[in-house]
Amino acid sequence: MKVVKTIEEIRQEVRFLKEKGRKVAFVPTMGALHDGHLSLIRLARELADDIVVSIYVNPEQFGPNDDLDSYPSNLKDDLAFCEEEGVSLVFTPDTKIIYGDEKKYFKIEIDELNTHLDGGSRPGYFQGITLVVNKLFNIVEPDLAVFGQKDYQQFQIIQQMVYEFNHDIELIMAPIKRADDGLALSSRNAYLNEKERALAPLLYQGMQRVVKAIQDGLLKPESLLKEVQKDLEAKSFKNDYLGVFSMDKMAPVTSLQKGKRYLLAGAVYLGKARLIDNIIFEC
Amino acid sequence: MKVVKTIEEIRQEVRFLKEKGRKVAFVPTMGALHDGHLSLIRLARELADDIVVSIYVNPEQFGPNDDLDSYPSNLKDDLAFCEEEGVSLVFTPDTKIIYGDEKKYFKIEIDELNTHLDGGSRPGYFQGITLVVNKLFNIVEPDLAVFGQKDYQQFQIIQQMVYEFNHDIELIMAPIKRADDGLALSSRNAYLNEKERALAPLLYQGMQRVVKAIQDGLLKPESLLKEVQKDLEAKSFKNDYLGVFSMDKMAPVTSLQKGKRYLLAGAVYLGKARLIDNIIFEC
Repeated sequence: MKVVKTIEEIRQEVRFLKEKGRKVAFVPTMGALHDGHLSLIRLARELADDIVVSIYVNPEQFGPNDDLDSYPSNLKDDLAFCEEEGVSLVFTPDTKIIYGDEKKYFKIEIDELNTHLDGGSRPGYFQGITLVVNKLFNIVEPDLAVFGQKDYQQFQIIQQMVYEFNHDIELIMAPIKRADDGLALSSRNAYLNEKERALAPLLYQGMQRVVKAIQDGLLKPESLLKEVQKDLEAKSFKNDYLGVFSMDKMAPVTSLQKGKRYLLAGAVYLGKARLIDNIIFEC
Repeated sequence: MKVVKTIEEIRQEVRFLKEKGRKVAFVPTMGALHDGHLSLIRLARELADDIVVSIYVNPEQFGPNDDLDSYPSNLKDDLAFCEEEGVSLVFTPDTKIIYGDEKKYFKIEIDELNTHLDGGSRPGYFQGITLVVNKLFNIVEPDLAVFGQKDYQQFQIIQQMVYEFNHDIELIMAPIKRADDGLALSSRNAYLNEKERALAPLLYQGMQRVVKAIQDGLLKPESLLKEVQKDLEAKSFKNDYLGVFSMDKMAPVTSLQKGKRYLLAGAVYLGKARLIDNIIFEC
């Protein structure tokens, strides 16, 4: 496994792999790797010959009140983790390498797909993500890239960018990896104290309750969604959003249709952590 | 020479060239090829093994009052021209191939560099250009691309995009190609009738007069610029802009400094044609 820091090095290494006819998969991360990332890497390994992992905490996707300064980081563990999983290349640029020192003149604006869910709650979040992912795609030029379903809106927006910007990259969505008690794995779970960690699975449990009720015939889930949010608040969660959204545009849906697929997505604050989760289900 | 229409075909052909270790130059055009394009193609040939020319009239860079519907087009002549110049591949997509049928969600916004010159006069013009050039760069993935100095602001904006988006492409600026009487070659010169064509070189002559006066010591050229514009108006030109701009940010400069390089740029309407021209000079 090679660990490289500069754009020139990673380009050269990937070119070298491609010249040998190897299929290259890319797993972009912000480090603090956990078993969720492991599942992305293992899926990548099934689909490609070599895996490139990037580890870069992108400041452009953090708002002024977000946790940029406290975002968990442990490069040594991350590298050991990648080594063990047979990753070929780890790209660890710093912000000077990614964004340079000079003024930036370009912005990527996203219409409509960015209105709800995290796009609605976190102004600038997806603009920051597309900014860095567009760069990383042009730097690494992989054959395919793997992202997790936990960030479903991110996947959809990046998929649309790949289509509109004509990146020659296949995107793969990996299923959500959960702890035994159902909590979706996330680097931010590290912020939870023991008591909060014990409460955290209630988000997924509440969401499972909504999906079950819908599949049992509830086509207007609004009051149930409110009830679940109320229950979470009673357990010291602070709600951001919880709702059913269309799969393609991620627009809120209040009246569901039998036989259609939907996204149930929620975001809550618990202690210092902001947790998100979602379930894709058929009505 | 191969002529291909689809993204899959052009990608496959370029990949084939690269696998043979050939260096690929790209000359994006809107067709109606003339000796200005010829000079771009010949410069490309000096710097690379194979040349890809794209011929595509990009509707996104035309405003509602622009000449999209009447823009000159002669694919048969263009292809013969490319064949004669030893071009390897011509990419002739249509708008369905480039933009698809569906709603677009992404916009590229350009700060500051887009404020003056054609950026100021033609709202949406450079957003449309960067939209299509970003696509073409990701589709063709050339080693280098050649653009003409006549569109100096275009070159600078695309250069900045290449930097900020991390396209792995070297940009080359080719000098302005002029007719014997000094008129900068342009596909839009075809709109000029005989009388207008005879008057057209006055723009460049007026600009040469300004550069000479500056190099003779005139450091505040504003009143001379106005005089030149007045002279042009008297000859039936309609002025858009004429001014001295900084080389990097293309901001207006009213008080020049000895020893520095500047851009003198002008745009006029003459009959049905909008003509632009520029001179890079040292003060």
